[in-house]
Amino acid sequence: MPSTIPDIVISRLPIYLRALDRLAQEGHEVTSSHELGKRLGISSAQIRKDLSHFGGFGKQGTGYKIAFLSGQLRQVLKVDREWEVALVGAGDLGSAVARYRGFTDRGFRITHVFDAAPEKIGKRIGEFVIEPISSLKKVVQENNIKIAMIAVPAEEAQNVADALIEAGVRAILNYAPINLKTPEGVHVQYIDPVIHMQRMTYYLP
Amino acid sequence: MPSTIPDIVISRLPIYLRALDRLAQEGHEVTSSHELGKRLGISSAQIRKDLSHFGGFGKQGTGYKIAFLSGQLRQVLKVDREWEVALVGAGDLGSAVARYRGFTDRGFRITHVFDAAPEKIGKRIGEFVIEPISSLKKVVQENNIKIAMIAVPAEEAQNVADALIEAGVRAILNYAPINLKTPEGVHVQYIDPVIHMQRMTYYLP
Repeated sequence: MPSTIPDIVISRLPIYLRALDRLAQEGHEVTSSHELGKRLGISSAQIRKDLSHFGGFGKQGTGYKIAFLSGQLRQVLKVDREWEVALVGAGDLGSAVARYRGFTDRGFRITHVFDAAPEKIGKRIGEFVIEPISSLKKVVQENNIKIAMIAVPAEEAQNVADALIEAGVRAILNYAPINLKTPEGVHVQYIDPVIHMQRMTYYLP
Repeated sequence: MPSTIPDIVISRLPIYLRALDRLAQEGHEVTSSHELGKRLGISSAQIRKDLSHFGGFGKQGTGYKIAFLSGQLRQVLKVDREWEVALVGAGDLGSAVARYRGFTDRGFRITHVFDAAPEKIGKRIGEFVIEPISSLKKVVQENNIKIAMIAVPAEEAQNVADALIEAGVRAILNYAPINLKTPEGVHVQYIDPVIHMQRMTYYLP
């Protein structure tokens, strides 16, 4: 496998993986770049080119074996394992994230939920007991947690990010509507509903 | 403007728009495909090519005027106006979405919040009074609402989508972790935190 796959290609692989999982759920065993492309609105040529970075996934004309390809993608994306995730923020949004059922079998498991509000500490959200943000660094370090989700108000998000990074977190999913400043080597993704809505309005009459 | 811009290009324009807005907030007036590319992890050649679909946005060497380019992108994406949005689901997640402050000045305004639970009807979330899902069709039709967000449990999401589409909605942002079946001409985007996390694990040691 080459050491540098373009970021833009990496960013599409989870989309392919989700489409493959859905095809498998629908009972398919084999698919094609054409079928994937039709589902995803991406050209089949682009899909073949993206997948060719990893080599040997399929042959033109015979299609892709879904189970094999999704296994390969999981390995490339390092989600053939289960990452522990720390969630910071136990308000409306954090509670919803803690209860979200879409993480299962996709490489992630929330193991700790933190909040700053004294009245929330020790309360439960589903299976979690809310922990004080004062113990964030210790817990993240001791459990060697590398991934966190931030679901706190915008004005607290940078401080939370700083604490997470100091404790060793290297990947942050940020739900707060602000841009985080982070050092080299820390990855940030944003959940931004507006981006998704702006991707649809173009097509509306 | 050509009538068919590739979907993949359209999907990147909101990302460019957000980056431009952030540059403007930071006090910049001019930017370059190189600077945008560095911020976004996309090649500057790709950015120039994407923006060339619309013509006349910038000249090599002189950079892009941020205010002009963002204005043009807003027009292309049809977010130079404010779309009314219906939100269905007033649980943890729906409440968080209703209170989200990231919509302002980006083309969208939630105007109605619906829920199926009788005990929630008439209660307030921020500025909204929760309306019964039984009045969804009437309200959506009367207000000519074309965009909706679904924040209900997975097992209710398809029924809600069907009702929205019957009432005239043509773009749906779905927070529920299921794939919606929708007719031709209805656009769906998914908020899926796992996709974003899988985009980061590749880079973790």
